[in-house]
Amino acid sequence: MAIEIERKFLVINDDWRSLGIGKVYKQGYISTADKMTTIRVRIIGDDAYLTIKSKTEGISRHEFEYSIPLEDAEIMLKTLCDRPLIEKVRYTVNLKNLIWEIDEFKGENEGLIIAEVELESENQVIDIPHWVGEEVSNDARYYNVNLAKYPYLKW
Amino acid sequence: MAIEIERKFLVINDDWRSLGIGKVYKQGYISTADKMTTIRVRIIGDDAYLTIKSKTEGISRHEFEYSIPLEDAEIMLKTLCDRPLIEKVRYTVNLKNLIWEIDEFKGENEGLIIAEVELESENQVIDIPHWVGEEVSNDARYYNVNLAKYPYLKW
Repeated sequence: MAIEIERKFLVINDDWRSLGIGKVYKQGYISTADKMTTIRVRIIGDDAYLTIKSKTEGISRHEFEYSIPLEDAEIMLKTLCDRPLIEKVRYTVNLKNLIWEIDEFKGENEGLIIAEVELESENQVIDIPHWVGEEVSNDARYYNVNLAKYPYLKW
Repeated sequence: MAIEIERKFLVINDDWRSLGIGKVYKQGYISTADKMTTIRVRIIGDDAYLTIKSKTEGISRHEFEYSIPLEDAEIMLKTLCDRPLIEKVRYTVNLKNLIWEIDEFKGENEGLIIAEVELESENQVIDIPHWVGEEVSNDARYYNVNLAKYPYLKW
């Protein structure tokens, strides 16, 4: 179990592309009655994970993540998860002791590119790279769980 | 991932008690939007499990079960699961090549005793012990997920 604190921004140009290598992600969500809890099934390459996140206060949340068999994840994505699934390529970029994760969305969220940075405390001061634009940490439309319900191409 | 086929009955007397040893179970459910999918957090002694079940046809369902750290399960039961939690003692009884699980409920389901038997096929013929009464396989009130919402003492 971990407490996750992250900030999320729109990406405004392509200058980050030379800085990282991408991995293909496919993920979906099992809808919960309580929208503060999310249950995610995720495949990264040949690895698969089941993750339960509970929204707590502000940008902090509890996260429980477990490795699961790839075959289980494929069945769950196919039979239990909301449509559309989230498909994206995630690029990891190390800059000034921070790890930025840039998600370039595909499928029904094509055109959307989001940069996330994980912090050690909610008030940590960070250097914002020049390819990072508007902060969307608190805009629920950009939560992956919501992009699986109201994808970017339908906005 | 497994396909689970089971039949469920009310227990009508105490003649099973000398046949098995009980283990304490504590479990809860994270409510899903689709009531055909259940997400269960379960503690048996010092072991903990996260289980996702999808109702399919009749008495068959998919089941995905993973061991998780006890501490995770305790936090999830406390913060994410519906109230009341399910508390019961499960007795396992082997009879004529069948494994019967007898759940004696506690807490808000005190007084309810249910016997379950797992089958290899939906049409398998079984010997019914004399301490087994009415079949409730298809009565949704007796699903543990529903006993966590509408416990027996409130019926």
